[in-house]
Amino acid sequence: MYNHRMRRPSLIDKVCTAEQAAALIKDGMTVGMSGFTRAGEAKAVPIAMAERAAADPFRITLMTGASLGNDIDRRLTEAGVLARRLPFQVDPVLRAAINRGEVMFVDQHLSETVEMLRSRQIGPMDYAIVEAVAIREDGGVVPTTSVGNTASFAILAEKVIVEINLTQPLALEGLHDIYIPTRRPHREPVPVLACDSRPGLPYIPIEPTKIAAIVFTEQSDSPSANEPPDAETNAIAAHLIEFLKQEVKQGRLGMGLAPLQAGIGTIANAVMHGLIDSPFRDLRMYSEVLQDSTIALFDSGKLAFASGSSITLGPAMTRRFNENLDAYKKRMVLRPQEISNHPEVIRRLGIIGINTALEFDIYGNVNSTHVEGTQMMNGIGGSGDFARNAYMSIFVGRSTAKGGAISTVVPMATHVDHNEHDVDVLVTEHGLADLRGLSPRERPGRIINNCAHPDYRDALRDYAERAARERGGHTPHLLEEAFSWHLRRQRTGSMKPEAGAI
Amino acid sequence: MYNHRMRRPSLIDKVCTAEQAAALIKDGMTVGMSGFTRAGEAKAVPIAMAERAAADPFRITLMTGASLGNDIDRRLTEAGVLARRLPFQVDPVLRAAINRGEVMFVDQHLSETVEMLRSRQIGPMDYAIVEAVAIREDGGVVPTTSVGNTASFAILAEKVIVEINLTQPLALEGLHDIYIPTRRPHREPVPVLACDSRPGLPYIPIEPTKIAAIVFTEQSDSPSANEPPDAETNAIAAHLIEFLKQEVKQGRLGMGLAPLQAGIGTIANAVMHGLIDSPFRDLRMYSEVLQDSTIALFDSGKLAFASGSSITLGPAMTRRFNENLDAYKKRMVLRPQEISNHPEVIRRLGIIGINTALEFDIYGNVNSTHVEGTQMMNGIGGSGDFARNAYMSIFVGRSTAKGGAISTVVPMATHVDHNEHDVDVLVTEHGLADLRGLSPRERPGRIINNCAHPDYRDALRDYAERAARERGGHTPHLLEEAFSWHLRRQRTGSMKPEAGAI
Repeated sequence: MYNHRMRRPSLIDKVCTAEQAAALIKDGMTVGMSGFTRAGEAKAVPIAMAERAAADPFRITLMTGASLGNDIDRRLTEAGVLARRLPFQVDPVLRAAINRGEVMFVDQHLSETVEMLRSRQIGPMDYAIVEAVAIREDGGVVPTTSVGNTASFAILAEKVIVEINLTQPLALEGLHDIYIPTRRPHREPVPVLACDSRPGLPYIPIEPTKIAAIVFTEQSDSPSANEPPDAETNAIAAHLIEFLKQEVKQGRLGMGLAPLQAGIGTIANAVMHGLIDSPFRDLRMYSEVLQDSTIALFDSGKLAFASGSSITLGPAMTRRFNENLDAYKKRMVLRPQEISNHPEVIRRLGIIGINTALEFDIYGNVNSTHVEGTQMMNGIGGSGDFARNAYMSIFVGRSTAKGGAISTVVPMATHVDHNEHDVDVLVTEHGLADLRGLSPRERPGRIINNCAHPDYRDALRDYAERAARERGGHTPHLLEEAFSWHLRRQRTGSMKPEAGAI
Repeated sequence: MYNHRMRRPSLIDKVCTAEQAAALIKDGMTVGMSGFTRAGEAKAVPIAMAERAAADPFRITLMTGASLGNDIDRRLTEAGVLARRLPFQVDPVLRAAINRGEVMFVDQHLSETVEMLRSRQIGPMDYAIVEAVAIREDGGVVPTTSVGNTASFAILAEKVIVEINLTQPLALEGLHDIYIPTRRPHREPVPVLACDSRPGLPYIPIEPTKIAAIVFTEQSDSPSANEPPDAETNAIAAHLIEFLKQEVKQGRLGMGLAPLQAGIGTIANAVMHGLIDSPFRDLRMYSEVLQDSTIALFDSGKLAFASGSSITLGPAMTRRFNENLDAYKKRMVLRPQEISNHPEVIRRLGIIGINTALEFDIYGNVNSTHVEGTQMMNGIGGSGDFARNAYMSIFVGRSTAKGGAISTVVPMATHVDHNEHDVDVLVTEHGLADLRGLSPRERPGRIINNCAHPDYRDALRDYAERAARERGGHTPHLLEEAFSWHLRRQRTGSMKPEAGAI
């Protein structure tokens, strides 16, 4: 019936129900699942695992590429299955459990998880549960809309459960390039010399005897949850494009710029959208997640090639993508996330990294993860892989949150994911601060005047001036009031000074 | 007279005094100087510049590899010559001027300076002033005891001043390997596949017409200022060696471990010394600075090869090194710092990075640079290049400073150079905390029990417990008292609770 999807007849006796496959997962196991940013996650078996746990409680360590769709993280959390979770998530229910200290979340650079697994610094992995469009004659597994960590999980796990998803177009075959770094101490250079390099295989090579179960599913990826661009994100995009035009004018970049990476989410997606109306041409992406903006940029003729580790689209773009898959496929590749985020390739290609900041301080230290220094939002994701090794590292964000009650620009970041050494450019809807070549003392003026919301500028200037005068130092701070804005918000609901106070 | 040192006769008319060469440097220029960690800096011309400034004030932007010897930074600071300084320094007088906000210090990852210069994100560079053992027939410059950024400075600068140092042995020729990454967008992989790879040239290839002046000098490198190992550093080394033995036992490493990087300074040097009495063998270093411990490890038969960017030794080891230079040279190479610290090579080789922490917090965030969050000590150096991209990132430090008045382990680091994502192992004289695979909530117990000084353990536990209970979150903190230890020290001179207080 599904010969074109399951092409190795000897594996036919491995076909089973999701419930049967889920029963293979035992308490205490380490499980790797496919899935990167709501794309290509295993669906039926994880859901069956959550259902089974109601009657038969068990807990596992779960590793993925990045976030999962179809509420998998919510369901597994609610069922009490997750003891430990890495390296990224975005689910509100799981997030709350992490912040209550119930699930041990290990927030990792996305390039590092399989390196640590391969060198046995974490793991070992008992099962990999991976979504596929097909199993080849040789047992090779063809991934769906993401590669993420799927390939190395399948190669390194003791056993593999494959979910063949019939809703994922068979035409995805050929979209992927599976290159696995060779073993140390004889590791070769990663042979990715350009965005469109294809040094690998179009499938995941695994020993067929490792396949413990095969489940057929028909559940779609969750659609992307990005909001459409708005006035603020358009302003951010406009400031960034104006800056890049100046870089071209100065002769530092050509009209094709440099390979672009854009983080997940509404703002980065909107910034990429903004490039449609820019003068740049023949753009290339070397990124993690390809979003609606990637398809829009292809269709606008601006984008020549896009390399990523997953593709996550809204409903309209999903239809457009699937209807023209063969055409898009010629200009796209999905890679393992250790290759999409590889320090070697990022430095070699000279990438412009564009990632989202939750807050940043007057010296350019960026918090990407922790609300008020304590509550995890999503995770660092790949932003650290890119920011440290990129040609230019740009962080974008709105200048305020919660209707203006929270300033994104603060005296001191309550958590530092990206320190001032890794942050070249900051952009909000108010403007752009180019920090390259500036010492910390030269930064507050530029960051406050260009990026902060006008309501907070005077107070930020006051802090910066008093810190420089009263305490001094390379990076002046008043430790006794560095977090006073956050404490005020905890007390009053707003970072704005209380009536009557200075 | 010095034919074997200055082998290109046509350059003879460029030979001049240091004063004449110094006169070429004008107010407002950007100048690059050789020198990396007290080794191989230009000496006579910078000193002549400082002397000239007394009568003829001028200010420049000064870039180097890393720190300079012979009090060059002090002299230039006292003479008011430094307007801007990057990417690293260790001089007390310069440090004070930086902390007063008088010299704009741009503290950079050591691999990044020449990338930014090459792509014109900083610069342009007017003059490079470089120390050499010789100028070749073809105009090529043979460096001395460091490469640092010298090669790219000389290649990218408008003009070059060469100091031929007659005290540096001519036999240093052949020690260096100058490989410069090819231009983007057609950049090739860096062909360093092992510690002993030599893809480059043994000299810096420059256009002879760029050489504006040649000065002969006879001033030696400053000797290394490392303190000898003591009981505490020996204890740190012992904990680390025991840990590495366990890694071997677990099968994660072989007896040759993995290529080792060790930061500059007394503690890292002592840790490397400790390996002499370890069971490991056939060790290799892929590091920045080769110190006394490197020579001692060679002589003990433990070390097979050492790659670095400079060599800085005490007086006794300098004699031993110079007397046996040909033998050592076969097992050593000095590279440009963008290659010694290259993310591509660091990830490929799978390096164990060992760097020094100034303070670290109960969640594993490390401050390498800022005393009490404001006062610059030296700079991040290469620690970020290694920590982010290494196989394993280890930070070492004494558990207290100032006779016990300051705890190295604090509730929250006042400045974050290396966040918890980049810190695998912490070591003090009290023990070692292996943080791999742990979530933040699992870390305080291990860090406090294993690394903190016993005098501070109860107070750290109290903070961690109350933060988890009262505030919660992925990384529990009480922002109102996160820096209370530092504020107490500012008030009382000690982080220890005041009598009568809790």
